[in-house]
Amino acid sequence: MTITIDDIPRVGPDTPGGTWLRRYWLPVGCVSELFDIPMAVKVLDEELILFRDGEGKIGLIGQYCAHRGASLEYGDIEERGVRCPYHGWLFDVNGNCLEQPSEKGGKEFCAKVRHISYPVRELGGLIFAYMGPNADKPPPLPNYSALIDHGGIRQIEPTRHFAYNWFNFYENSADPVHVWILHGSSAYGAQTWGNQFFSAEDPPEFEPVDMPYGMKIVMSKKISGSDSVIVDEMSLGFPSILQVGDTEFVHGKADAQKLMNTGSDFEHFMFITPNDDHNFMMFTIDYYTGPDPNFFNHLKKMRKREELKENLKAYDTRPLMPFRGNVRREDIVTQGTQKLLGERKEHLGTSDRGVIMLRKMVVEAIKAVAEGNDPKGLYLEENNEGLVRLDSFVGLREH
Amino acid sequence: MTITIDDIPRVGPDTPGGTWLRRYWLPVGCVSELFDIPMAVKVLDEELILFRDGEGKIGLIGQYCAHRGASLEYGDIEERGVRCPYHGWLFDVNGNCLEQPSEKGGKEFCAKVRHISYPVRELGGLIFAYMGPNADKPPPLPNYSALIDHGGIRQIEPTRHFAYNWFNFYENSADPVHVWILHGSSAYGAQTWGNQFFSAEDPPEFEPVDMPYGMKIVMSKKISGSDSVIVDEMSLGFPSILQVGDTEFVHGKADAQKLMNTGSDFEHFMFITPNDDHNFMMFTIDYYTGPDPNFFNHLKKMRKREELKENLKAYDTRPLMPFRGNVRREDIVTQGTQKLLGERKEHLGTSDRGVIMLRKMVVEAIKAVAEGNDPKGLYLEENNEGLVRLDSFVGLREH
Amino acid sequence: MTITIDDIPRVGPDTPGGTWLRRYWLPVGCVSELFDIPMAVKVLDEELILFRDGEGKIGLIGQYCAHRGASLEYGDIEERGVRCPYHGWLFDVNGNCLEQPSEKGGKEFCAKVRHISYPVRELGGLIFAYMGPNADKPPPLPNYSALIDHGGIRQIEPTRHFAYNWFNFYENSADPVHVWILHGSSAYGAQTWGNQFFSAEDPPEFEPVDMPYGMKIVMSKKISGSDSVIVDEMSLGFPSILQVGDTEFVHGKADAQKLMNTGSDFEHFMFITPNDDHNFMMFTIDYYTGPDPNFFNHLKKMRKREELKENLKAYDTRPLMPFRGNVRREDIVTQGTQKLLGERKEHLGTSDRGVIMLRKMVVEAIKAVAEGNDPKGLYLEENNEGLVRLDSFVGLREH
Repeated sequence: MTITIDDIPRVGPDTPGGTWLRRYWLPVGCVSELFDIPMAVKVLDEELILFRDGEGKIGLIGQYCAHRGASLEYGDIEERGVRCPYHGWLFDVNGNCLEQPSEKGGKEFCAKVRHISYPVRELGGLIFAYMGPNADKPPPLPNYSALIDHGGIRQIEPTRHFAYNWFNFYENSADPVHVWILHGSSAYGAQTWGNQFFSAEDPPEFEPVDMPYGMKIVMSKKISGSDSVIVDEMSLGFPSILQVGDTEFVHGKADAQKLMNTGSDFEHFMFITPNDDHNFMMFTIDYYTGPDPNFFNHLKKMRKREELKENLKAYDTRPLMPFRGNVRREDIVTQGTQKLLGERKEHLGTSDRGVIMLRKMVVEAIKAVAEGNDPKGLYLEENNEGLVRLDSFVGLREH
Repeated sequence: MTITIDDIPRVGPDTPGGTWLRRYWLPVGCVSELFDIPMAVKVLDEELILFRDGEGKIGLIGQYCAHRGASLEYGDIEERGVRCPYHGWLFDVNGNCLEQPSEKGGKEFCAKVRHISYPVRELGGLIFAYMGPNADKPPPLPNYSALIDHGGIRQIEPTRHFAYNWFNFYENSADPVHVWILHGSSAYGAQTWGNQFFSAEDPPEFEPVDMPYGMKIVMSKKISGSDSVIVDEMSLGFPSILQVGDTEFVHGKADAQKLMNTGSDFEHFMFITPNDDHNFMMFTIDYYTGPDPNFFNHLKKMRKREELKENLKAYDTRPLMPFRGNVRREDIVTQGTQKLLGERKEHLGTSDRGVIMLRKMVVEAIKAVAEGNDPKGLYLEENNEGLVRLDSFVGLREH
Repeated sequence: MTITIDDIPRVGPDTPGGTWLRRYWLPVGCVSELFDIPMAVKVLDEELILFRDGEGKIGLIGQYCAHRGASLEYGDIEERGVRCPYHGWLFDVNGNCLEQPSEKGGKEFCAKVRHISYPVRELGGLIFAYMGPNADKPPPLPNYSALIDHGGIRQIEPTRHFAYNWFNFYENSADPVHVWILHGSSAYGAQTWGNQFFSAEDPPEFEPVDMPYGMKIVMSKKISGSDSVIVDEMSLGFPSILQVGDTEFVHGKADAQKLMNTGSDFEHFMFITPNDDHNFMMFTIDYYTGPDPNFFNHLKKMRKREELKENLKAYDTRPLMPFRGNVRREDIVTQGTQKLLGERKEHLGTSDRGVIMLRKMVVEAIKAVAEGNDPKGLYLEENNEGLVRLDSFVGLREH
């Protein structure tokens, strides 16, 4: 089987890209958004429901009842599982059929029914699922640092939903150049530190670096008349995690220089999970270990600076207008209008070296899976505190 | 040709299922809903218009003009037919082209034009069409008892439209179990008689029975300390008719026991006509032969008891909520979320024996048609009054 | 390759019909509707943007950036071109990449990038594009008389958008019969002159005539007791232009007889440009050379007579109702409900001889292109004033 970049954006069960993605734990929901009703969720082109049973256990099982196919999205949550409204079959979080009130016999028929189910785990407010082979022996769920309590405070944003291919978003982070061009007039550029570092006129150097967890982009800029360089790192954890180091500086600090000297105490993780080839959801987690007890309130206020800077002209009926001034809308206008990788024409230059390296690494990972091997980033090393960190250094480094 | 249950839900002109359905008269409209304008109606995946000409004759003809294909939905009704707005061709109810004002010659060209048309008949307020072979010698249109005046009063509901496959609805009636589970907290369960008979804790016995017109489900329950059994029948007339015996008890009677002793004087027919593979319409006819002159008013009030019993929680954004407490919405949440038969995974048990028998009978009927034979239920026997009855006995039977 | 009428409605890049259409200049926008923002426009199934750079030059280039495929619809207009918001690549109106701020090297990489672009020309307020082969040596853009100043006044209507196949609209003009039938109760029929000439009871004679620019329909009617005939012409310029002679009479004149004697001084051009197989846009240009300085105001008032003549009945829920009384809505109800040519059943009569001839001529033109020859109407003769006229005579002719 020849794998190319055309395989990357396809996520369905029988695709090479989808087979690769299924080897990892992926977040499929937020604890705070899961109530006492089943929640329909499409993951990797499979229609599923996520629910928490009356005993508190979370399940991710097939949306359509194993009996005659009615949607379990409308089922009732009970102590031990979810009950189909049609004929009352009861399924537990493991896909076992516990009851069939319409059947008079013993449990033999129950035992024959195997409903689709995937292992799930809670970690730091997110619900992760493993949809790959050997469900009994899944790989370890990494102790992502932002999800493990280690003396800080955590904030999870409401899940966001995007109507374009997941990889457009993901590979965008291997491309730092867009930061000082696309985002040049939004938060990144408009504030003191960002303005200084992410200057389109005097942009930082950057290199993509192969890492055990995936890759990172290391941006750096010399301080004139000094041996020091300012460094900022963006990391891409396989298969679909982003960790951005500079968020605190950009959004959270009036006095960037002071922080520069003491280092970052803020992590900003984004977990991307494809719903299908044309939709994905994103879970955003902030973890802060600094001294400010009201940090997230301050962060919120700082982010409000990202107000839209465009006044719409009367004749401007373009559907995504306005967008300038808000990083998230700027992303949607660009990534969201790209067609799927493999279905668009491109001319890649040297400034796309991060994207080129990422695609190559993903193609290699897909190949590895296709050949029966473990893909990159499946087993991640923990630090002394037992945390899996994705690099996100921001600060001064001696040259 | 091998026919399987996968063929059942497909209704198009060249499908085995559609060829079978075309052997029967199917209702395509309601007399009370047909005005002095053409009505576009899709039947078995064919685009048609239904209209009544100025002389009172009803026609079911192709939607698109035989001349250059403009829609006759916007045609003008005249004494003898419908006239295309584009060039004025006039078509009668038999698909004959009567006039071509744009053509100067004689009637030769008119005579050459054969526009699609199907025989139609009015019966009891419904308009039936025959879309099968040998249109000149169609099978008899059965004198369905609820459509023939025999000393009672009739009520036709406004036509209902459903956006899912017709067979999901139809086979649901071969499955009595859903009544005491899905509908357990709606009208069926909440009222005296229904509560007693359709108890989920103590459900009635039931058996599917092969009948000349199709099949029926006979539900029965012994009365303790008596030789009598209460019997309730639901009938499925081929190809797509339902007759439910217990409606009067459930909806219409405060004093069920009294009625139980005297027998039912109420018929509740539902005629299902597929528009295409993903939509169908339903015509519902009630016929009452009892002593209450205001029966339908009382029925209406009783049905109002079917109020939605669920208060929607703020976080509950599921599109079909709320549904509990209303039989019709409960049906939509279950049947309407099933995929097409043959495209869903199922595990059928002994309680599905009605559904299994029905599917088998339909497959046999499709096969019969494919082999050039008449399908089941095409010719139906009339009773002494000249009526075609579908069993709907409800009441006491001596054991 | 066998070309049939089935090829006519298809306009995509690799279709015979689309290849034929690409041999001509087609209008793609209106000068007055092009502002200082890019305008996304689909032409012949290609996604493009139209824009005017800061120096005033107009460009029609591919919608998706040659770099990584973000939509240039959201680009910024600059002095020399449009700049992609993602990484700042700058494209000029000829598809040259002028700047790549993300690339540090010289201009070599810029020079390698060829972005889709098509030649455009402004003429009389319209923007024409040539999307065919040999873009450096396109055929001449004809000096269509309504677009060249020659002592009159011009009016361009707001661009109209239609959601059906372009050829349904175009061939409609080769079919004069619909005028006195479909439009019999709207402007054409209700006013003095139109009523007299376009009488359904006494319709004019008509003949389709092969012309160098395409074809014309010549309608004529004898004046009783006179040697004169009234003549009215509708012209179809290849590939998709309509010129209607009688508009002034129908809409603009109270005293038609007087004008009849002096001849028409009004031209009414409609340019049709397909967006794709199911959508087209129309550019309508009026040019008036008569003595009335307020002609277009008067025309506007006369057109207001075209009020909808139908009162909608409460039960009439047909989506396109009402339509009678307004020529444009009457067109949509008929042409807009026709399926694509080749996908509908037809019975053509002698009154369809205009349509038949037109289709034959288009098939011949498509064939010519497929065989490497120039299609009909590509090179048009100018009159003494340097104008390309499409016949639109209306008035008296001696017999």
